[in-house]
Amino acid sequence: VKNIEKMINVNDYAEQAQVVLPPEIWNYLDGGAEDEWSRANNNNAFNKYKLLPRILNDVQERSLTTTVLGTDITTPMLLAPTSPLRLMHEEAEIAQVKAADSLGTVAICSMDSHYDLEYLAKSGGENLWFQLYCYGSRNYMKEVISRVNRANYKALVITVDAFYPPRRERMMRSGFVLPSNVEMGNLTNLEVTPENRRNDGSVKRFALTWSDLQWIREATSLPIVIKGIMHEEDAAKAVDLGVDALVVSNHGGRQLDQVPSTIDSLSSIVRRIEGRAEVLLVGGIMRGTDVLKALALGAKAVLLGRSYVYGLVVDGQNGVEHVYNILRDEIDNALTQMGVSNIADLNSSSIIYDKQ
Amino acid sequence: VKNIEKMINVNDYAEQAQVVLPPEIWNYLDGGAEDEWSRANNNNAFNKYKLLPRILNDVQERSLTTTVLGTDITTPMLLAPTSPLRLMHEEAEIAQVKAADSLGTVAICSMDSHYDLEYLAKSGGENLWFQLYCYGSRNYMKEVISRVNRANYKALVITVDAFYPPRRERMMRSGFVLPSNVEMGNLTNLEVTPENRRNDGSVKRFALTWSDLQWIREATSLPIVIKGIMHEEDAAKAVDLGVDALVVSNHGGRQLDQVPSTIDSLSSIVRRIEGRAEVLLVGGIMRGTDVLKALALGAKAVLLGRSYVYGLVVDGQNGVEHVYNILRDEIDNALTQMGVSNIADLNSSSIIYDKQ
Amino acid sequence: VKNIEKMINVNDYAEQAQVVLPPEIWNYLDGGAEDEWSRANNNNAFNKYKLLPRILNDVQERSLTTTVLGTDITTPMLLAPTSPLRLMHEEAEIAQVKAADSLGTVAICSMDSHYDLEYLAKSGGENLWFQLYCYGSRNYMKEVISRVNRANYKALVITVDAFYPPRRERMMRSGFVLPSNVEMGNLTNLEVTPENRRNDGSVKRFALTWSDLQWIREATSLPIVIKGIMHEEDAAKAVDLGVDALVVSNHGGRQLDQVPSTIDSLSSIVRRIEGRAEVLLVGGIMRGTDVLKALALGAKAVLLGRSYVYGLVVDGQNGVEHVYNILRDEIDNALTQMGVSNIADLNSSSIIYDKQ
Amino acid sequence: VKNIEKMINVNDYAEQAQVVLPPEIWNYLDGGAEDEWSRANNNNAFNKYKLLPRILNDVQERSLTTTVLGTDITTPMLLAPTSPLRLMHEEAEIAQVKAADSLGTVAICSMDSHYDLEYLAKSGGENLWFQLYCYGSRNYMKEVISRVNRANYKALVITVDAFYPPRRERMMRSGFVLPSNVEMGNLTNLEVTPENRRNDGSVKRFALTWSDLQWIREATSLPIVIKGIMHEEDAAKAVDLGVDALVVSNHGGRQLDQVPSTIDSLSSIVRRIEGRAEVLLVGGIMRGTDVLKALALGAKAVLLGRSYVYGLVVDGQNGVEHVYNILRDEIDNALTQMGVSNIADLNSSSIIYDKQ
Repeated sequence: VKNIEKMINVNDYAEQAQVVLPPEIWNYLDGGAEDEWSRANNNNAFNKYKLLPRILNDVQERSLTTTVLGTDITTPMLLAPTSPLRLMHEEAEIAQVKAADSLGTVAICSMDSHYDLEYLAKSGGENLWFQLYCYGSRNYMKEVISRVNRANYKALVITVDAFYPPRRERMMRSGFVLPSNVEMGNLTNLEVTPENRRNDGSVKRFALTWSDLQWIREATSLPIVIKGIMHEEDAAKAVDLGVDALVVSNHGGRQLDQVPSTIDSLSSIVRRIEGRAEVLLVGGIMRGTDVLKALALGAKAVLLGRSYVYGLVVDGQNGVEHVYNILRDEIDNALTQMGVSNIADLNSSSIIYDKQ
Repeated sequence: VKNIEKMINVNDYAEQAQVVLPPEIWNYLDGGAEDEWSRANNNNAFNKYKLLPRILNDVQERSLTTTVLGTDITTPMLLAPTSPLRLMHEEAEIAQVKAADSLGTVAICSMDSHYDLEYLAKSGGENLWFQLYCYGSRNYMKEVISRVNRANYKALVITVDAFYPPRRERMMRSGFVLPSNVEMGNLTNLEVTPENRRNDGSVKRFALTWSDLQWIREATSLPIVIKGIMHEEDAAKAVDLGVDALVVSNHGGRQLDQVPSTIDSLSSIVRRIEGRAEVLLVGGIMRGTDVLKALALGAKAVLLGRSYVYGLVVDGQNGVEHVYNILRDEIDNALTQMGVSNIADLNSSSIIYDKQ
Repeated sequence: VKNIEKMINVNDYAEQAQVVLPPEIWNYLDGGAEDEWSRANNNNAFNKYKLLPRILNDVQERSLTTTVLGTDITTPMLLAPTSPLRLMHEEAEIAQVKAADSLGTVAICSMDSHYDLEYLAKSGGENLWFQLYCYGSRNYMKEVISRVNRANYKALVITVDAFYPPRRERMMRSGFVLPSNVEMGNLTNLEVTPENRRNDGSVKRFALTWSDLQWIREATSLPIVIKGIMHEEDAAKAVDLGVDALVVSNHGGRQLDQVPSTIDSLSSIVRRIEGRAEVLLVGGIMRGTDVLKALALGAKAVLLGRSYVYGLVVDGQNGVEHVYNILRDEIDNALTQMGVSNIADLNSSSIIYDKQ
Repeated sequence: VKNIEKMINVNDYAEQAQVVLPPEIWNYLDGGAEDEWSRANNNNAFNKYKLLPRILNDVQERSLTTTVLGTDITTPMLLAPTSPLRLMHEEAEIAQVKAADSLGTVAICSMDSHYDLEYLAKSGGENLWFQLYCYGSRNYMKEVISRVNRANYKALVITVDAFYPPRRERMMRSGFVLPSNVEMGNLTNLEVTPENRRNDGSVKRFALTWSDLQWIREATSLPIVIKGIMHEEDAAKAVDLGVDALVVSNHGGRQLDQVPSTIDSLSSIVRRIEGRAEVLLVGGIMRGTDVLKALALGAKAVLLGRSYVYGLVVDGQNGVEHVYNILRDEIDNALTQMGVSNIADLNSSSIIYDKQ
């Protein structure tokens, strides 16, 4: 592994992760659907927005703290649910939850984690959220939600944009198969029926509908976050059903190509929601300035996906923390240079759309 | 030939077709007029449109079926008339009509086919359309239309954008000459006069005018489709004359360079026609998402041109079917990821214009 | 020299001219001011305009003829004044005027020609125009205009955008000096005073002003054409002074970098003039479609500059004629494919602005 | 060193400077913050503006002179404060002030100069301005301002966009450390306390606020220039406080990436100020046409930064003068070709925004 002092931005970690990983796993991590246009555009679209620096404000002391669903976090970046992390590093989700605890932020544990949710809850800090994919039946789902509740997770994140397998051509070409040492730690007691099984042996996800969401809303008092919103109509409908937060996401361009970027989709959703729910964003965050742009356009915070995974690949929990701290330093520095002392002061006057 | 399981998208077939074909034939297939700007732009222009995914809809069952001129097809893609297919594979149009039958769609047989229309009608299924170029005289044309009728073709497609030879520079440079084993199967009984003959020995096409169209409209009760519409005024005029369907086409950028792409031209034509005729599109379809974009902008279905020919070149009828099935899988997957269960539900709210 | 049958577009001639010419002369011909942005953009800007083909019109017979200042020409392309042509081919302006005569168009002879204007008038056909740069004094200028009149030139073209030497860096780097066998045939009787002489020994041009133009307008009854208009205000002012035609020109990007392209500048000038003078265009014409675009935007005809010079370099008068005929064939073919039978029918509905 | 006669534009000097300098110093000079997008865009953004040439005006005599804060300068270009110039050439600021004197323009001496301000005042001409960074305390600042006043500097330029160290990754990678032979000539009598010292041993800058600006405004009768304005609100606020001139600057893209270019930011500031202060611009000037564009958009003059430093690196004072004279020649030539005889006549009708 390259000397960690030489790693000064997230892209350094991406490059190093590509060196470290076997090609088929790198392609799993890096790839997107079909031509990967959306995957690349999530990143590139940030360049269309420019930050407007102000002068002569007192920025000796800066505040990067915020709250998400009432939880204080030190920096407006959460660790997104991703899976299978075990593929990336043997510490897998343990590194994710320990890093989040150490960094003072929220980790969102994936339903598809290698380690089971109870074990992760014990390994991590107080501020864990749980991301739900549904398997089996409503009864099984209900049982999972009870476990989440008992394990003291603070919110339930429902990913709604990845019920069906996508066409990821790099994986199709490499004939990628999940290694047997990567497990679905939360599904050990699931009865897998023929209907639940895909051709490749994996367990079929349960495709949720609006009525399922309503049922979940009634089944739990945990705050509910919907991850995978790209359309303001869906945002409004979800909030009407009592959802507490939304994550603008196109699943990192991994499910459907030729969709808008998340940063381009953010504003209309924020405007439509009018503050009735918190809005988060994920997709393409590689720089502190990307985070500030999302905040200026109305996001409460962002989720890091691939970016922290690069750190995980390179150096386990340490790597996750280093990536996070690089971005935190970039945010803090950019804030200083912008003449803004508190991230809460960022708004639409801090940014312009300036397509080159 | 590359292992067919390794062929996972249409571009794989294009690349393999280039390997398989002699350069001058590849250049015939791949090339366009002059600088080939329009030929390339037909493809690239699709990238300016983005699909807007929706969430939590029930898409367990999807419907890709539609009707064109009253005929049911399993997927909104027809096989366009192209010629000379014999140049591409010895099965030529036989592969086209058999594949269409097997796939449950319409094949449009070319006037310039190697095999005669009666033989193709016997080889293919029930849903064949016939594409007319006019040679000789009105009398000869009348006779051809009668044959088409007797052979039970379901519609008459009149191509109106290729009466005069274009300037295809790749072909000019290679000095391309049609090999003698490629025949004009439908012209065997045509008396070729000096006026009908071009310098290179080929038969001159009859350049149709609006009055010819009116004459054809009166001469047959078959549904008439005009292929080669790029201007809304022409669309309106054709519909006023009783045309049943229009194909937005610039002949694959093969006739005139520096024209708009077909996807960019579609919306204004759809708006102008106000449902008085069905609107189809051809040109640049390489992905299932391209098809969904055309449908969202108002096309009833699309025609595949070069894309199915790539399959024909590589593996005859099997190749045509595989290309078609790849696109069908892409459409089905994209529809699923978009949260749309029926292609009939696609409309202008499913798409945005987002030029990068 | 490459086989002339292999030359199928103007770019072929450009490439061959680069092979044929010594580098410093190629750089003289090809280069522009400073970064050559404007020189390149004259060409590229045409790509922003798309032609809109129409269908089912009778285009069996096409007419490409038009008139410029009352003179019939077979094709809407004139041969621009360029100098020093002797640098490009020993036939120099003789090839230009003979080719124009043979092609049935107008050649505009340069004031800076190697051969004197009387000799050129005798060598060429009836339709010569004369391009004036002013040297010496008003008296000398008056004498030149009288000679032009006596030699039966049909119009006086006053180039107004090249009175001062530009910064052409390729030439500065090569230390280009005009060879001694290239003469200023029209200046043999000019008394060169110290004030008239530049540091490099060449004769200083007289920088005309609006009052000089008025003086010339009164001094001759020849039609006057102003070449070098880029601004509608100047167009209007010139027409108010009695000018008969305008040439939209930025001197091929050779005088000032970072100016608009001529095709982008055309429309506002045409609109402003409201038909009170004929409007021509020069700059970046490499394709027949470029010509049609200029006509659709309101130009009466275009001038060929570098493009015919490429032909001159490669094959003298023959080369000039071949380049011209290639463009004529492209125009004729494009007109046919557009469904337009007469260039007079091109107008703003034939074209759209569609920046990619 | 390359023969100076071969250096014909500023880019030649940039290329030669890269050859001459050790890589880590070149990277210091050339680099910007993070991805260097803003650094590059300062240059590229000029290409979006096109100059509109006019004809037949009398431009035999041109005037490039103007005044800045009442001082006559021969050409609308000042020499910006940059540091540490000693890193670039041993003549350092001596070359800057002597060149300015010889060229008839203003040099702005940097607070961080190697030579002290009194020595520079004696070395240079009458038209020196002083750029202030604040160190130590208000008392120390007051003392510096008194020294500036006594040394007869004509204006006080307060740089407000570089109080905090930026993230310049090229420097972070090279581990750049200022060599010991580069001194802070103006700080010799500063008492450096632990609070004033950065980790790397350098002295911490005092971060000014609006109240500090008000205090300075009251503490001196020198004209005050604020350098680092990017937002019209800040421009208005500064002028309300009695500031005499503004420099639109993003510190050459060296402090914060992902900000607008200076040329794109100029117009809104000029409009907002309504002539109540002079507006200057710095950033990306590599051509005389860049200068004319800034003037046409309302700048009184521009500051040269990196461009004159390239000259300094290559050939000391001579190099600075040569770069300046190249740009002056380019301005004069462009003005001539535009048909404008006096830079004061440039205005918004001289330019169009024409994004390609």
